[in-house]
Amino acid sequence: MLITLLTDFGTRDYFVGAMKGAILSINRQAEIIDITHEIPPQDIRAAAFTLLNYYKTFPKNTIHLCVVDPGVGSERRAILVKTKDYYFVAPDNGLLSYIFEREADLRVFELTNNKFFAENISQTFHGRDVFAPIAAHLSKGINTEEFGMEITNFIRFESSKPQKISETETAAAIIHVDNFGNLVTNLKSAYLPARFMLEINGKEIKKIRKFYAEAESEELFMIFGSAEFLEIAAFQNSAADLLKVKNGDPVLLKKLLSD
Amino acid sequence: MLITLLTDFGTRDYFVGAMKGAILSINRQAEIIDITHEIPPQDIRAAAFTLLNYYKTFPKNTIHLCVVDPGVGSERRAILVKTKDYYFVAPDNGLLSYIFEREADLRVFELTNNKFFAENISQTFHGRDVFAPIAAHLSKGINTEEFGMEITNFIRFESSKPQKISETETAAAIIHVDNFGNLVTNLKSAYLPARFMLEINGKEIKKIRKFYAEAESEELFMIFGSAEFLEIAAFQNSAADLLKVKNGDPVLLKKLLSD
Amino acid sequence: MLITLLTDFGTRDYFVGAMKGAILSINRQAEIIDITHEIPPQDIRAAAFTLLNYYKTFPKNTIHLCVVDPGVGSERRAILVKTKDYYFVAPDNGLLSYIFEREADLRVFELTNNKFFAENISQTFHGRDVFAPIAAHLSKGINTEEFGMEITNFIRFESSKPQKISETETAAAIIHVDNFGNLVTNLKSAYLPARFMLEINGKEIKKIRKFYAEAESEELFMIFGSAEFLEIAAFQNSAADLLKVKNGDPVLLKKLLSD
Repeated sequence: MLITLLTDFGTRDYFVGAMKGAILSINRQAEIIDITHEIPPQDIRAAAFTLLNYYKTFPKNTIHLCVVDPGVGSERRAILVKTKDYYFVAPDNGLLSYIFEREADLRVFELTNNKFFAENISQTFHGRDVFAPIAAHLSKGINTEEFGMEITNFIRFESSKPQKISETETAAAIIHVDNFGNLVTNLKSAYLPARFMLEINGKEIKKIRKFYAEAESEELFMIFGSAEFLEIAAFQNSAADLLKVKNGDPVLLKKLLSD
Repeated sequence: MLITLLTDFGTRDYFVGAMKGAILSINRQAEIIDITHEIPPQDIRAAAFTLLNYYKTFPKNTIHLCVVDPGVGSERRAILVKTKDYYFVAPDNGLLSYIFEREADLRVFELTNNKFFAENISQTFHGRDVFAPIAAHLSKGINTEEFGMEITNFIRFESSKPQKISETETAAAIIHVDNFGNLVTNLKSAYLPARFMLEINGKEIKKIRKFYAEAESEELFMIFGSAEFLEIAAFQNSAADLLKVKNGDPVLLKKLLSD
Repeated sequence: MLITLLTDFGTRDYFVGAMKGAILSINRQAEIIDITHEIPPQDIRAAAFTLLNYYKTFPKNTIHLCVVDPGVGSERRAILVKTKDYYFVAPDNGLLSYIFEREADLRVFELTNNKFFAENISQTFHGRDVFAPIAAHLSKGINTEEFGMEITNFIRFESSKPQKISETETAAAIIHVDNFGNLVTNLKSAYLPARFMLEINGKEIKKIRKFYAEAESEELFMIFGSAEFLEIAAFQNSAADLLKVKNGDPVLLKKLLSD
């Protein structure tokens, strides 16, 4: 059984290693796939966006284990989610919001059966002591209902959506900055008028490109990225650096008159 | 057979890839688990602390391969250690000190049988040419005694321990700074009086918290971390940055009068 | 079947996870080995050098999947290369130049049979939609000839070679800076006179060492590295930092008179 790992634990510490050991000690047959451990510390929204963009590429029945957990040790709940094709194990803090938004058939269980936790539970590292053991037991075929009661009041945040502010203007936002400095907006093609431009940090972006190599030297341009949102990119450069823009910053969509 | 990898090789170079290939060329069935490759360059103590915190989470018979090796190519020995539950392959430079301190049943073998090394041995990359092949052959079931003679004069450093300096004061130290900027001290609960505070870089830390989310905004506090040592943490922030403190820096433990 | 992954996607994003999912959805039995995802963005030469240094350590029939792809979405071709012992899947942009240089028996196929691509192909992420699916189908035993026509006009760059500029001087270059700050030159032992020194950024390097720990405090020295090129290193320090030198910078080889 495949278990993917998404955390904000970084790659310099023993945290990820201890989680992997905890999984393999319970299910020696589990196959662990690293997604990333470099979600910005405690950034639940970045984790949610990242998960959205890989979970469906995996085979059916994959267990997606996601630990970005600023509330560790507090009363925040731990949950197991079963959708038509996948399982998700995570803290109940909004990390699975996009899953709740996109998956129709879903059941959410609160993880309360401590028979499936580590014997001694640290108050600061539930990744090792709660989430990894749950994923490992699940991968051995334990029924979802054995882990705890089904709940419906799980936590979800509203995904960032563009807001129309006038006949010609829509307030949008940067929802992710990738490794290349490309700026992912919350604009999908359905929102977009026939002709448009973006305004961001005082600069206007008018050109739209189909692929990166089509751009011209020093050009800033729009492109439909692999996550299906409109992105702002720069020719062989970081648009984030050039525009001095970061995650969460506003973008203005301006409708242009047709020719 | 599981082989875990701990190195200071970084993740940008071919080093880790070449080690993995060397292992799989000898034992195609080996399962390699990345722990971290970002131990600070040549920092044997950081490697030792990291190893201490994951090795026991793995199933019995796991081979822990650890290469932080400033003496590569010199006369420093290479060793294989067998404990009740695990195998360790590493340079003989103190990296396994915590293992020697905590494991009762242990046998240490000097790796001298070059039948199990690569054919051509680079003087600068024993990770690929010595340690990886040894771990791979071991994972195929070769008996520990075939790799070389048992030795007892292996190198170990004393782990950093708090020193009582007066009736009310104990000199302690930071032994690790984690990815979140939490400061791990060498203080275990056994050392601690009923009431106490810490002094570090001119600041007093008095509050003790059970979990991170319990802390208040901008607060610096003490917490028992997942590695079972007292840690200094900051509310949604890096204690290391706030206190301008780094690994090895002193901490003063002050006993307070009971109420 | 083993599939190794080399990319410039970084480790913070969903890119690597999405590629792994795409592979495993096609061949659940594929074993994926991370080499590195931190090739400097779009640096084809760094990717080529890295590949050169690990590909042969892997078992026969390993598939080496390499995606550093500044031309993604453009007319640049995608290729599959079969050598005596390995398979390579990569964009046709020079990334495989060292393979073309060193492997005698090689066949190169242009990847045109879109039956083996993802159903919907993003113009910005062929790693997920083209290269990963090809590697996965190949790992299931699909014949190389089914992926497209054999070609001979694939792209290769000349590897950087030293140039003799006078009876006693040769212009060489730094071709890689590793994680420790060691500077890899393009000088192999065959090029080297009996007695020589290097000049780099105004400094002379005269000492040659057999292994790192042999060096003296604060010393800059030459050493034959694990990649079989002459390297410039510094005692427990970064030669790149000390010399203020970066990849591509020139080095002058000076022949010295024999005693």
